[in-house]
Amino acid sequence: MKVRELGEFGLIEHLSEIVRGASGGDLVLGIGDDAAAWRTDGAIEVGTTDVLIEDVHFSLSNAAWRDLGWKALAINISDIAAMGGSPGYALVSLALPPETEVDDVTELYRGLAEVAVEFGVHVAGGNISTAPIVIISVSLIGKATDALLTRSAALPGDLIAVTGCLGQSAAGLRMLSSELEVDPETFAFLRKAHLRPYPRVAEGQELARHGVKAAIDISDGLISDLAHIGKASRAAAKVWLDRLPIHPVVQASFGEESRRLALSGGEDYELLFTARREAIDEVCQVMSTPVTVIGEMVEGDPGRVTVLDEQGREVEYEAWGWEHFKSL
Amino acid sequence: MKVRELGEFGLIEHLSEIVRGASGGDLVLGIGDDAAAWRTDGAIEVGTTDVLIEDVHFSLSNAAWRDLGWKALAINISDIAAMGGSPGYALVSLALPPETEVDDVTELYRGLAEVAVEFGVHVAGGNISTAPIVIISVSLIGKATDALLTRSAALPGDLIAVTGCLGQSAAGLRMLSSELEVDPETFAFLRKAHLRPYPRVAEGQELARHGVKAAIDISDGLISDLAHIGKASRAAAKVWLDRLPIHPVVQASFGEESRRLALSGGEDYELLFTARREAIDEVCQVMSTPVTVIGEMVEGDPGRVTVLDEQGREVEYEAWGWEHFKSL
Repeated sequence: MKVRELGEFGLIEHLSEIVRGASGGDLVLGIGDDAAAWRTDGAIEVGTTDVLIEDVHFSLSNAAWRDLGWKALAINISDIAAMGGSPGYALVSLALPPETEVDDVTELYRGLAEVAVEFGVHVAGGNISTAPIVIISVSLIGKATDALLTRSAALPGDLIAVTGCLGQSAAGLRMLSSELEVDPETFAFLRKAHLRPYPRVAEGQELARHGVKAAIDISDGLISDLAHIGKASRAAAKVWLDRLPIHPVVQASFGEESRRLALSGGEDYELLFTARREAIDEVCQVMSTPVTVIGEMVEGDPGRVTVLDEQGREVEYEAWGWEHFKSL
Repeated sequence: MKVRELGEFGLIEHLSEIVRGASGGDLVLGIGDDAAAWRTDGAIEVGTTDVLIEDVHFSLSNAAWRDLGWKALAINISDIAAMGGSPGYALVSLALPPETEVDDVTELYRGLAEVAVEFGVHVAGGNISTAPIVIISVSLIGKATDALLTRSAALPGDLIAVTGCLGQSAAGLRMLSSELEVDPETFAFLRKAHLRPYPRVAEGQELARHGVKAAIDISDGLISDLAHIGKASRAAAKVWLDRLPIHPVVQASFGEESRRLALSGGEDYELLFTARREAIDEVCQVMSTPVTVIGEMVEGDPGRVTVLDEQGREVEYEAWGWEHFKSL
C-alpha cells in the first residue's frame, strides 16, 4: 500500500500506534492535536512543528522570501494559539539549494524575526543544509497559560464558533496563482491574508481563560478541521451556511465561490472552537476580535459535518479540505 | 552572493545576526552550539533540531528505512548529549513522496521508536506532508542535568579528548557506497557504525558532573568540530596524529586512509571535549567508555587546528570536514 492510498490522516493514526510505547513520560497530550503537551517541573509545556516545502506549500513565483519567513513561524505560533498557549522558543531547520541568493535567505530570516518579535518568540537555534528544493521546518515550544484547549473536548450541544473571517487565505492563493484582475487594495488584502497569517494567540488564551475547552486552528479548511474536532470528540457537527463570516472583499471578488472558499479553503489560521452558549456569550463580550457562531455539535457519526442552508436543508459539498497525499 | 559561496557556517553566522533581536528572553545559549538552552521555571531546557534529506544525508539505495528512523532521532539525541543533557520530547516532521510504501514508513517509525525507547525519549508529536523527496526533520527538547557543556569553554592548556573511536562511520559510508569487499563481520560493524550511531548521553552527563566544561559531538569531522570549539573559545588546537583512536577493523580495511577518515570523516557522534588534566584523569577513572587524549588547546588563531606526527612535525591535511554548500 502506498501512502497516497492511506492518506495523511490515516498515516498519522498508523504511525502514532508504533511510537505509543515511546510516548509515555509526563506527556499530557501526544500525537493528534495541534500541539503536543508535557509536564515539566513548574508548568505544562506545549510543542509543535510544521514545515513549508517549495512547490508543495508555496511557490517562489508568488511568495516573497520575507513572507515565507513570516509564514513558516506564524503557522507554528498558530498551533500554540489553538492550545491556548503562549509561544516561547523556536528552532529553525533550513534546507536550501546551493545557488540560493544570500539576500533571499536574509529576507527569509527578516520575516522570521518580524513575526518572532511580534509574538515574543525567541529564535533559539536551528540548522542549515543543502537540498534540491527550499524546505523550512520550524519547531516551537511554548507554555500553557491556563487549561489546554484540545480537539477532543467538544460536546454535543456545544455551539461552534470562529474568530475573524473565513476564506480569505484561499482567495488570496487563488488570486496569486491565476491572473484574477483585482484593484490594488483587494490585491494587498488577499495577498496578506494568504502570505502573512496573523496567529490568534491572545484570543486562544482568552478562550481558555473563559472556560472554552475545545479548539483547533483552521489550517486544512473549516470542514476538515471541524471533522478533526468531531472525530477526536466522538461527535458530529452542523454548520449553518448563511452564518459563515465571509469578508466583503472576498464576497465581492468571488461571489458564490466565496462560500466554498470559506468552507474548504483553509490556511486562515483563525480559531475554530466549541463551547456552551454561556461561555461563548462571555467570550464575545470580552474579546475585541469578532467571534461568529456558525453551527452546533450534535450526537452522530464522529467527525461527520453537515452543512445546512437558510431553510435548514442539507447542502451537498465536496468532502474536501487539505490532506497531504490525496489528490484534490 | 550565493549561499554556496558563503558556506554553511558563514550563513549561520550571518543569519544569527538577523534574529539577535528575537533571541532574548530567558535564553541561556542561542545559535552556535550543539543545542540551544533556555531557563524555565524549574530548570534549564535544551533544544535542538536536525534533518535528514534524501540524496544529501542518505541514499535509499544503501540505508534501510529502519536505520533512517534510528539515525534521524539519534543525531538529535547526540546534540543533547554534547550539552551534558538528558533528552526528553521529540517532534517529528516527515515529508514523503506519495508513492512511498506504507511498510517503509512503518519501518522508519520502528527505528525511531527503538532509539526513543533506548534513550527514554518520548515521541510527542509531529506532522506529515507530501514532498518530491524524503525529508525527516526531528526536534528534540531535553534538560540540563548539571552545568551545560558548551563549545566556548575551552581554554589554552586544556587537553583534548574523545570518547570511543573515530573514522568508523565514514569507513562505513565508504564501504556502502563503493564495492569494497569485506568479510561479513566487518560489513556488519561498519554498516552499523554509519547507520546506527549510538549517542553518548550517559557519557555527556558524566563529563558535566566531573567538571568538564567544553564539548561538541563529532558530526562534521574531528578537525572541523575541533575548529568549532576553537573558534567559539578563541583558541587554537594541536592534535597528535599517532594518538587518534582508530578501531582495528577500520585500520585493517583502510590502512593509511584510516587516519584521514578519523580526522575528517565525521558522523561518529562521539564526544570531543577539552579539560584540565585532572578532570580528564577523573573522567577516565569513572567512565567505562574508553576516553583517549588526542591533543591540547593552545594560544593561537581561533579555530586553527594543527596536526602533528610522531616526531612533532606538522602534517599537511586537506582542510575539510563536512560543510553544507561547499563542494568537497
